[in-house]
Amino acid sequence: MGTELLLGQIADTNSSWIGEQLALAGIDSHHQVKVGDNLERIRAVLDQALDRSDSIIMCGGLGPTQDDITSDAIAAALGVELVRRDEVAARISAVFASRGRAMPENNLRQADIPEGAEVLSVMPGTAPGFKAEAGGKAVYAVPGIPWEMQQMVSQCVLPDLKRRAGITSLIKSRTLRTWGDSESALAEKLHGEIKRLDQTGECTIAFLASGMEGLKVRLTAKAPSGALADEILADEERIVRAIIGDIVFGVDDETMEWAVLDALRQRGWTLALAESLTGGLIGARLTAVAGAGDVFRGGLVSYAGDVKFDLLEVPEGPVVSEEAVVAMARGAAELLAADCAIAVTGVAGPDPLDGEDPGTVWMATLVNGEVQATRAKFPFDRERIRQLTAVSVLNNLRIRVLAGK
Amino acid sequence: MGTELLLGQIADTNSSWIGEQLALAGIDSHHQVKVGDNLERIRAVLDQALDRSDSIIMCGGLGPTQDDITSDAIAAALGVELVRRDEVAARISAVFASRGRAMPENNLRQADIPEGAEVLSVMPGTAPGFKAEAGGKAVYAVPGIPWEMQQMVSQCVLPDLKRRAGITSLIKSRTLRTWGDSESALAEKLHGEIKRLDQTGECTIAFLASGMEGLKVRLTAKAPSGALADEILADEERIVRAIIGDIVFGVDDETMEWAVLDALRQRGWTLALAESLTGGLIGARLTAVAGAGDVFRGGLVSYAGDVKFDLLEVPEGPVVSEEAVVAMARGAAELLAADCAIAVTGVAGPDPLDGEDPGTVWMATLVNGEVQATRAKFPFDRERIRQLTAVSVLNNLRIRVLAGK
Repeated sequence: MGTELLLGQIADTNSSWIGEQLALAGIDSHHQVKVGDNLERIRAVLDQALDRSDSIIMCGGLGPTQDDITSDAIAAALGVELVRRDEVAARISAVFASRGRAMPENNLRQADIPEGAEVLSVMPGTAPGFKAEAGGKAVYAVPGIPWEMQQMVSQCVLPDLKRRAGITSLIKSRTLRTWGDSESALAEKLHGEIKRLDQTGECTIAFLASGMEGLKVRLTAKAPSGALADEILADEERIVRAIIGDIVFGVDDETMEWAVLDALRQRGWTLALAESLTGGLIGARLTAVAGAGDVFRGGLVSYAGDVKFDLLEVPEGPVVSEEAVVAMARGAAELLAADCAIAVTGVAGPDPLDGEDPGTVWMATLVNGEVQATRAKFPFDRERIRQLTAVSVLNNLRIRVLAGK
Repeated sequence: MGTELLLGQIADTNSSWIGEQLALAGIDSHHQVKVGDNLERIRAVLDQALDRSDSIIMCGGLGPTQDDITSDAIAAALGVELVRRDEVAARISAVFASRGRAMPENNLRQADIPEGAEVLSVMPGTAPGFKAEAGGKAVYAVPGIPWEMQQMVSQCVLPDLKRRAGITSLIKSRTLRTWGDSESALAEKLHGEIKRLDQTGECTIAFLASGMEGLKVRLTAKAPSGALADEILADEERIVRAIIGDIVFGVDDETMEWAVLDALRQRGWTLALAESLTGGLIGARLTAVAGAGDVFRGGLVSYAGDVKFDLLEVPEGPVVSEEAVVAMARGAAELLAADCAIAVTGVAGPDPLDGEDPGTVWMATLVNGEVQATRAKFPFDRERIRQLTAVSVLNNLRIRVLAGK
């Protein structure tokens, strides 16, 4: 694995995930090293890590093939032998059996663990993880497959690290997802609250610019128990929401499209789309949410001009215009028999259209029979113009549906 | 920057990009280290790198703020002072002037370069890069902002590294993108050719599984000149295409949707869509390609069942069926007045529909008035079912349009 990472053939997402988890657990992480599948070099890196750190997490190289040599390197660094663990071998063959497959002989190599090491209790796949100790320091080995690694790190490695470090407090965080304000505008609104928290110390606020996902406001609380941390976060969420208002569209993993569907569902309203420059993007995002079908009726992708005229009864004339987008919204609601509608038309580029420059976009929402249209100019490339159009108009609809008008 | 990377707040894409470029240039990369914004730790990492490597690329920490300390660390490791370079200061203020902005005083810190270091000639942003030498080894410092870093590495660092390593040959690669065969099936088809190349040594073939992007077949040639490498690659591409046939849909950055539009454009045919479970995904992908408008007419996203019946004249009955998908394809072509059509209907999950399990999908293509429908069962999650449906049906259409029937 290490070699593939160094060659850039696969992206390394594990190290940033582990880094984030360590930070949330309150454990300092000072170095992350990628090294190729070479016994000598892995061992040298391990020796150095043992020299400068209290604990080490080694990720990857626990598979069944000849270039999976992490266990060998750890055994060599600790001056011990690899020992076949029968109970691990039995677990590996049980996993294969449960999938109805015969276990290839070389998978048994994965049951060879450094002498004295403790096998981790969680083993989601066929690769066991383990913890070896040397001179009071811990070396954890976990597989490189992300979902296997994440379960082992969350359930075994982090609790053990916290115990070793004497960390009894718990850090939890909650992310409020916002759309519409710049980072500096948000920082200004929350300036007083951030200063207040600086003094109480019970919670922190951080901003994470996340491009098309909006601006995230992360609340982080440290407390003796999870329940207490949750209480602090709930109180702080109320305070922050009272200050920044309806630009918050979701919490943690809730997306803009989830928020729109949820708002419509609470009113019992249905939705239709008329998409031009986005070509289906808005529908694709909405239907990525499971259960969209009770709200979302469908849409017309009217890419060619005459499709707008013929099917949506858009009056002949420039198709990047207020008249066109308003007619598109009304046409979509009627054609698809929906309570609400979204319509977008504009110039995705790279060439101008109807005398308008790329980035010129008309967006409309229809709620309660009334259409509201806005014009935007997005000075970006084709893909970002389309994405910004989608999320902006979804947010416009969300705010109107929440307000009920 | 280093600290943000360690905390997982921003993903590290630079190291894999640099790793890939080094590999293509024929330069071995043995270690990649991430370290936080701490002078002592950066310096220790640098000392160690100087000890074990011939050259070092340091990325990030060249900005104007107090935690940008890469230059300080390099100066300390080399035992020299930082010296303000007037010509660099002038270049930085010129960049600000060209953007019509006043230069903040602290940006001048970026003109402080280790004594004796050579400033890189390419400076796309406001951060200069430089090369320092110590004991015959080179330390390159480049900014962490990807587009600035990439220009400096391509135009300054890589040519210099190749010169130092005495590499006069050139490595070029070309990627054939395929859809439809497994890696083992492809490896079997190309087994003889790979063995032949093992002997001639002028070119190599590697497979890169790329999920929803298909399976990539990368041809890599080493030659004394770029023209010669291109010639070898062109010859090899012909040989490989003759063996694996029409599963190759594009070269390098050409996507499946680009290939479909290109095939239609060459016939002068137009396209309409009827999407159910994909909700607009196929249209979104097609219209991501600039210039899609001369081929793509539009589509109907018929998410609700009655939209299929009313607008596409699908006969009443189960909507996940051959009858439904065939009617959808004909209905879309007629409604949108197009020569060809794609229709998909199925169960994205997580719940069953019409008695069919999630992953059951009907896909149809209409070419020359004739509809061909296929049923698939994708044993995956909602998003992958939708993505696989989109790319599979696009590939079906591509092959039919190329064949003209």
